[in-house]
Amino acid sequence: MIILGIDPGTATTGYGVIRSDLNGRITVLDFGVILTFPTMTAPDRLASIYDGMNLLIEKHTPDCLATERLFFSKNETTAISVGRAIGVVLLAAAKHNLPWIEYTPMQVKQAVTGTGAAHKPQMQKMVATLLGLPEIPKPDDAADALAIAICHMHSAKIMSYRDLAKKSTRG
Amino acid sequence: MIILGIDPGTATTGYGVIRSDLNGRITVLDFGVILTFPTMTAPDRLASIYDGMNLLIEKHTPDCLATERLFFSKNETTAISVGRAIGVVLLAAAKHNLPWIEYTPMQVKQAVTGTGAAHKPQMQKMVATLLGLPEIPKPDDAADALAIAICHMHSAKIMSYRDLAKKSTRG
Repeated sequence: MIILGIDPGTATTGYGVIRSDLNGRITVLDFGVILTFPTMTAPDRLASIYDGMNLLIEKHTPDCLATERLFFSKNETTAISVGRAIGVVLLAAAKHNLPWIEYTPMQVKQAVTGTGAAHKPQMQKMVATLLGLPEIPKPDDAADALAIAICHMHSAKIMSYRDLAKKSTRG
Repeated sequence: MIILGIDPGTATTGYGVIRSDLNGRITVLDFGVILTFPTMTAPDRLASIYDGMNLLIEKHTPDCLATERLFFSKNETTAISVGRAIGVVLLAAAKHNLPWIEYTPMQVKQAVTGTGAAHKPQMQKMVATLLGLPEIPKPDDAADALAIAICHMHSAKIMSYRDLAKKSTRG
């Protein structure tokens, strides 16, 4: 299973691509950021994110797109701006028939560190450890995207265990 | 000049297309809504809006896309959801090199009714009057989109008068 984790934003969209094999081994295939610049118009920034997403999906042919559900307590202008970026990310998924799943920040923290109360440095260190990387992936948005991908991998594993348990109970 | 006004939303995206000729006459070319359904996934709803936008742009080859700047005081979930729809609307504009301009709700009211304090029924009545329509355009989102297009037409007219005034001052 190949998972594409995305941490969307107008200026910086982090991505992380991981593969888990049948033995549960995780391999990092790719991580980084899609950058856009304030000198560009808003539509052109969105087009860059969309084009970058299409390239990533075509390169890695992931089985699933995972993102983090965002919460904004103060600034609805930021919410609209991040919402726009999410819009074109989800559109790229739809255009490739890629299933999409969303996790809360709490679920991502829990999956990566075992606790919903983890701080960012703990998260990043655990991402590096779980993926066998020699150092913390940079920039932060790429590490966040990898954390989201790890969260989905854990969640998918739990779901498949449940399916197996159901089958063995039935059998 | 052909103007495409859009009032975006995940469920209902209103559109209005108007043309103004050199004598300032306005003609309505098209209005209506792009509908998506709650039974669809979020990415598929966005893909429907995007595909609908592309069809509208290819059919009417507008010179400009106008939208309304949205303000949310309470609900950031709605802001993200509307933000997503705006994202794919702006992407369609970028993919057709269509310039985009945004107006505040106050500017739209002012342009259509002459006062920023107008209520919705007044707005809708004025939209019908200004466009020479026998009745108020339905549904509401289509009337709102036409109002945004009218606002841009007025604003573009004022800008071109200013340009003329500047030229005659220089001359």
